[in-house]
Amino acid sequence: MSKEFLARCREIIGAGFVLEGAGMAPYLTDWRGRFTGAALAVLRPAGTSQVALLVQACAEWRVPIVPQGGRTGLVLGSVPDASGTAVVLSLGRMNKIRSVDTINRTMTVDAGCLLQHIQEAAASEGSLFPLSLASEGSCTIGGNLATNAGGTGVLRYGNARELCLGLEVVNAQGETWSSLRGLRKDNTGYDLRDLFIGAEGTLGIITGAVLKLYPAPAAMLTAMVALESPHDALQLLHLMQDRCGSSLTGFELMADICLTLVATHFPTLPRPFAMAYPQYALVEISSPESESHATDLLEQAIEAALERGFCQDAVVATSFAQSRGLWQVREHISMAQAAAGKNIKHDVSLPISRIAEFIDSADDKLMRAFPGCQLVTFGHLGDGNLHYNVAPPEGVPHDEFLQHQDAVNRIVHDEVDAFGGSISAEHGIGALKRDELARYKSPVELDMMRAIKAALDPLGIMNPGKIL
Amino acid sequence: MSKEFLARCREIIGAGFVLEGAGMAPYLTDWRGRFTGAALAVLRPAGTSQVALLVQACAEWRVPIVPQGGRTGLVLGSVPDASGTAVVLSLGRMNKIRSVDTINRTMTVDAGCLLQHIQEAAASEGSLFPLSLASEGSCTIGGNLATNAGGTGVLRYGNARELCLGLEVVNAQGETWSSLRGLRKDNTGYDLRDLFIGAEGTLGIITGAVLKLYPAPAAMLTAMVALESPHDALQLLHLMQDRCGSSLTGFELMADICLTLVATHFPTLPRPFAMAYPQYALVEISSPESESHATDLLEQAIEAALERGFCQDAVVATSFAQSRGLWQVREHISMAQAAAGKNIKHDVSLPISRIAEFIDSADDKLMRAFPGCQLVTFGHLGDGNLHYNVAPPEGVPHDEFLQHQDAVNRIVHDEVDAFGGSISAEHGIGALKRDELARYKSPVELDMMRAIKAALDPLGIMNPGKIL
Repeated sequence: MSKEFLARCREIIGAGFVLEGAGMAPYLTDWRGRFTGAALAVLRPAGTSQVALLVQACAEWRVPIVPQGGRTGLVLGSVPDASGTAVVLSLGRMNKIRSVDTINRTMTVDAGCLLQHIQEAAASEGSLFPLSLASEGSCTIGGNLATNAGGTGVLRYGNARELCLGLEVVNAQGETWSSLRGLRKDNTGYDLRDLFIGAEGTLGIITGAVLKLYPAPAAMLTAMVALESPHDALQLLHLMQDRCGSSLTGFELMADICLTLVATHFPTLPRPFAMAYPQYALVEISSPESESHATDLLEQAIEAALERGFCQDAVVATSFAQSRGLWQVREHISMAQAAAGKNIKHDVSLPISRIAEFIDSADDKLMRAFPGCQLVTFGHLGDGNLHYNVAPPEGVPHDEFLQHQDAVNRIVHDEVDAFGGSISAEHGIGALKRDELARYKSPVELDMMRAIKAALDPLGIMNPGKIL
Repeated sequence: MSKEFLARCREIIGAGFVLEGAGMAPYLTDWRGRFTGAALAVLRPAGTSQVALLVQACAEWRVPIVPQGGRTGLVLGSVPDASGTAVVLSLGRMNKIRSVDTINRTMTVDAGCLLQHIQEAAASEGSLFPLSLASEGSCTIGGNLATNAGGTGVLRYGNARELCLGLEVVNAQGETWSSLRGLRKDNTGYDLRDLFIGAEGTLGIITGAVLKLYPAPAAMLTAMVALESPHDALQLLHLMQDRCGSSLTGFELMADICLTLVATHFPTLPRPFAMAYPQYALVEISSPESESHATDLLEQAIEAALERGFCQDAVVATSFAQSRGLWQVREHISMAQAAAGKNIKHDVSLPISRIAEFIDSADDKLMRAFPGCQLVTFGHLGDGNLHYNVAPPEGVPHDEFLQHQDAVNRIVHDEVDAFGGSISAEHGIGALKRDELARYKSPVELDMMRAIKAALDPLGIMNPGKIL
């Protein structure tokens, strides 16, 4: 039976693009190297009509499909399980920018386009595509949309969801649905676009998208601000939003230990301050007007915050290179942590007003349960999103500490739940957090999700075992 | 049977809030007075738990439910059909602002709150709730969300969808689902929020919402700009977005006939220009900084547009009263049209880049089919949304011309479809455009919508006959 199925796949996309055996290896292991699955084959279609035919074949032979983009996800959403019954459907060959409409400020792309190529194509037209992630050189826009990616631009421009005006999707029946019209208003029935966005490939396969472009800012300016506490960070955020409005395009929080880790493992990166402070905020201003406008906005806001005692010190970048350097400190936190050893990661969100209180309370509970554990907390404060990572106490072997992973997760996620937060702010659920989801979601919501899944994918072939 | 059902309803909400007979009249007729339906009863619950019990009773007795807010919709979405078998579930008593979180910049409200009360409550906290519609004094936020309302603030702040962080919904089983947590990032499963938003009450009843607040701008400034053509309006829009970024908070287009109608029927309103031009744009700048910043931005942009020949003349308001006056001209177009007699309305959207071409082409086709007909075109150009209204030729009685409604709709909507547009930009489908939807939507999309409807409302009791 599987022979007939594979023969049909070869017929559709050509034998060279149906990978079996060792050729599948790069497609079976997740980004962080924690899990390697198995597959019947890896399919590499060249376009949407081939995807549709492949899905029809999968439906006929009841073969589960794991859609895959750049495989940079952190929750095992795009790799198959160990059963070897599924096919991986890799969209990597579908990497064309279909068109750019500068007046409509939109770009229409294949799902397999690398995010960075999209950013560059936008820049070459004098525009900005503001989705920005650490993995932008490897991740694809289809994956970004399937997981509703976040990143550092959300404060001003929103999540991937808000940057998409329309989709092309092959549904679980192998039919193609397109809303690639580039409309900013369209109230004609249910919002299928937002249902497929964030569904992690469990309802259908995103094959194309219309993305929103923005005018490239005339100037961007960055500062690192030293703070006493997360509470002061909230005051600073509020003050800057009031004064700068949507010109405030970045607001990242990081605890002192983050800068220490970066300084230890990446000694060539800048050290913004001679002395240590408990917390830091990386703030970014973008101006459509001019460099001097950006400078005035940023300096005046920081001055006001210093006067009111919300911040202790600040370093304002005076060149693009300096701005870049400050961002690199922020972007190297995860890598510095990885260099220091394994740790237990959480990607949580909270109402912004409760973040400081959450950090105090969760820190306290963890410190009591695991005295001396190191709390490497950083994140997108302006979005209420913390990467709340827990490393072993000094001297405790990382592998030994990782045995407490479930207990640590329980403390952190119970605390998130108690504060009205989310256990997955921007990484999604995949296979990794499926049990956690079942624990924290209400039965009513899970039932509605299951009803939708059954309605749109009655055979259960779309990325089974993910989310639900 | 219906006696038992009504007895149960009285038990749940009290006899005084189960209206029958003549008491129902105000709830049965649509806003524009075109249709009066019939109902078994009008139910006026006091809170979400009562709504849940009422829906459970409706499910038990198989009674269709028509959820109703301020009844200001334009597509017969919130009034019952003529059968008299349904109940109207009016949310008017659920009108409390539940809480305001100034640090999280959110407000949690009952669905029955008037939009204007929400705007005022936000303003009293120094914040802005930017949803702004002609009917804001009468419409409710639940209706705004159920129809994904648009209005004049979409260019900068998005549709109602983008202004909502979470919902409370009673589903078709009478279960309550809440996502009222005020989170800006939450990737834990399917996006139910956006599925209920815009579903026009056909999947469940929105009973509460968390809304996004923005800092109130320090200054807002308005100008009316005279233009040669819609094509020039697009150039002006592009230039202003490049120069002003998100400080450009309004961009409305109107043809000369709109100003003539307003001047005729509302002679006390300002006449911005001594001579007539083919088109006008109303543009608005909001600055988080200062009055002088807003003035500089606006004047410099208009100067640049004059230099490049994109516009012919401009009137910049120098006071709040003058700004208000210019907006009133825009807001009185519909009323001036109504005073002039009935007309055939269309609420369409297009890719912004194709609007000028669409207007030329649709105007031409209509003029050939109905020589001398008057094309009263205006709308939210920045969102690609036109109110493309067709009035009879001079001297032709309005009622006579309205007999051509179907033929006119066909020409306009076929043209919209040919240009890749939408036949309902912001008004929704309701009962009025259901047949049009069936004509223009793809079978794949309609099938997916029907599958979702059947999955979430298997008894078909939620606002039947609307959308699908």
